[in-house]
Amino acid sequence: MENEKISQAVKILNELNIDMWITIDKESELMTDPVMDYIVGAGVTWLSFFIISATGEKYAIVGNLDLEKIERLSLFDKVFSYKNSPKDDLLSILNKLNPKKIAINFSEDSPSADGITYGKFLRFMKLLDGSGFENKIVSSEKIIGALRGRKSAEEIKRMEKAVEITLDIYDKVTKFTKPGMTEKDVAAFIKSEREKLGLKPSWEEESNPSVFTGPQDNGAHSGPTDKVIEKGHVFNIDSGVIYNKYCSDLQRTWYVLKDGETKAPEKVMHGFNTIVESIRLSFEALKPGVRGIDIDTIAREYIVSRGYDEYPHALGHQVGRTAHDGSALLAPAWERYGDLPFIPLEKDQVFTIEPRLYLKEYGVATIEEMVVITEDGARWLSPPQTEIFLVK
Amino acid sequence: MENEKISQAVKILNELNIDMWITIDKESELMTDPVMDYIVGAGVTWLSFFIISATGEKYAIVGNLDLEKIERLSLFDKVFSYKNSPKDDLLSILNKLNPKKIAINFSEDSPSADGITYGKFLRFMKLLDGSGFENKIVSSEKIIGALRGRKSAEEIKRMEKAVEITLDIYDKVTKFTKPGMTEKDVAAFIKSEREKLGLKPSWEEESNPSVFTGPQDNGAHSGPTDKVIEKGHVFNIDSGVIYNKYCSDLQRTWYVLKDGETKAPEKVMHGFNTIVESIRLSFEALKPGVRGIDIDTIAREYIVSRGYDEYPHALGHQVGRTAHDGSALLAPAWERYGDLPFIPLEKDQVFTIEPRLYLKEYGVATIEEMVVITEDGARWLSPPQTEIFLVK
Repeated sequence: MENEKISQAVKILNELNIDMWITIDKESELMTDPVMDYIVGAGVTWLSFFIISATGEKYAIVGNLDLEKIERLSLFDKVFSYKNSPKDDLLSILNKLNPKKIAINFSEDSPSADGITYGKFLRFMKLLDGSGFENKIVSSEKIIGALRGRKSAEEIKRMEKAVEITLDIYDKVTKFTKPGMTEKDVAAFIKSEREKLGLKPSWEEESNPSVFTGPQDNGAHSGPTDKVIEKGHVFNIDSGVIYNKYCSDLQRTWYVLKDGETKAPEKVMHGFNTIVESIRLSFEALKPGVRGIDIDTIAREYIVSRGYDEYPHALGHQVGRTAHDGSALLAPAWERYGDLPFIPLEKDQVFTIEPRLYLKEYGVATIEEMVVITEDGARWLSPPQTEIFLVK
Repeated sequence: MENEKISQAVKILNELNIDMWITIDKESELMTDPVMDYIVGAGVTWLSFFIISATGEKYAIVGNLDLEKIERLSLFDKVFSYKNSPKDDLLSILNKLNPKKIAINFSEDSPSADGITYGKFLRFMKLLDGSGFENKIVSSEKIIGALRGRKSAEEIKRMEKAVEITLDIYDKVTKFTKPGMTEKDVAAFIKSEREKLGLKPSWEEESNPSVFTGPQDNGAHSGPTDKVIEKGHVFNIDSGVIYNKYCSDLQRTWYVLKDGETKAPEKVMHGFNTIVESIRLSFEALKPGVRGIDIDTIAREYIVSRGYDEYPHALGHQVGRTAHDGSALLAPAWERYGDLPFIPLEKDQVFTIEPRLYLKEYGVATIEEMVVITEDGARWLSPPQTEIFLVK
């Protein structure tokens, strides 16, 4: 898959009119640039450079003890190795290709494009000092956004499988859960179902699954507690799995029937249906070229128009090898989201849609679907939840 | 353990005369500052600040959805949360404590102290812009070097256990291995032994274990191949396990007897004994206050004096939660090691000693021991190899 991603990168460089892209890594075991998994698929020990040129040339510079390992990958035209300093090889490649723009992995907004540490950046600038190339540095944010965002058919297939598995587990949760169980009981059930399949959670286990029952003001990223699921509670779960490197990230909402009830109370259904409709309206508006902020606004305004507080987070994020992937976000113009809400959406990006609202006395109603942007709209990766799940 | 490390950090800040240390993280699932595991023990989603003051005060600023999770850890005096921007909370804490020096995690030389990405650094500088605090930034390299380097009795105990397990597996390798097996066969045996114990490798599985047999010029960080272990070969293995979060990293050397032989040839023993003696000489010189370069020089010069090429890497590195840990290195003054060879060693640091040399026609002889610096010398964590292991 690394070969496919490198070829895709060459195309993207030409599209963006950037001559060269350099990924810089070191002691990958300790902390590694997330791009390494896409274009190298292995780690390094010493300061290493992975250079992709818009001309299609590909070079690596690594410490001498990493040479054989990186050569064996057969991804680069030539792997240079050094014992003392990478400087000569680096400058000779730069002088040969003479790039006008050199993209490296830093971004204030997009963590997946922010893989170079500040120390490595300083070292890189010293290596370039006086060469003239130190003035040609640009951010690779758009390269990485496109590389991670534009999913191949195979990538989408894997995510559909991850979605299917997660929704199957949710079906089992509906049968398994009884009033009197705790959030932790239900979380343990989901974990055991996941482990039966030999799968890992798509984010840290401590909050995957998250289970929230009843009246509360917990955040969505906290783990399950000893709180008891009672009759009359609304509860929701947020979880996902990694299937063959690709993630799902899905939420569903349940209502626990009181004695004598056969359906959820009207107040609950008003909230639940508001969530369903806000997702449908957002989904209808999705297509290449629109901006995330416009989609977020649709759901946010609809929810407020129905008498609820707006949700304290973005409407949706991209999904891929990590649950939070890519650059463009379906988000409001809050400082913490930087420029991400303003990036036009592209075909083959996979997004979540996950509004929420609070039902006083009942709990949090929230649904998270996954969709892929198509030529002229969007397609559901998850069959959307339209009926509240009932627990007896 | 996070509480213990935070208290240790407060002491170190006072020792170093640094008023404040801030660790900055975001989307920890994608890539996280290695310090997070020491002082927080959990990840965050939005840009977050973990502030430790020399006065003993400890604060966190996190996105609102991470609030409850970080509060539950009970590590900080107060956890501030934000929906829009962390700026106000950040500046109000800084204004209250008014630090003269603010350490953040960047280092050109030490990857374990280089956890802030360049994008997060730029964002942090913008948040501080005009406050005056943007001119008070220093590197936390020395804080983190001390925090990771000075091992508690418990940390050392865990590493001793990891050492014991690894050496037990090596004993089994001596019995298991027969001429005609491949490097991969022996690696698979070690992996299966490790898995029986439910343990993970202390660096990436692809090259843990590394197995190198016979004449070659492979680097130490490459994985095992289909090369056959033949009679008359010298072979060596590099591997380690993680026991209760702490690593071992050990190498041993074997000789495969030819028909009729009862011991290794003199040429092999000359090389093997050179390695053993170079380790002993380095070990004898270890104590607090000496510099890594001086220790490296002892082994390097001895090996050259015996007629071999010098090894193309450092003599040793620190070990802890990762196989390569801490700052100070037993290394020569090569550019790629930056200042690390010149940092005086401290009590309770754990180092490897791992010289190597090449025996033409036979293979690579290398031993890697683990030692801890004591009050006035050093103590072996691994009973050192003094006899070459023989395979029949």
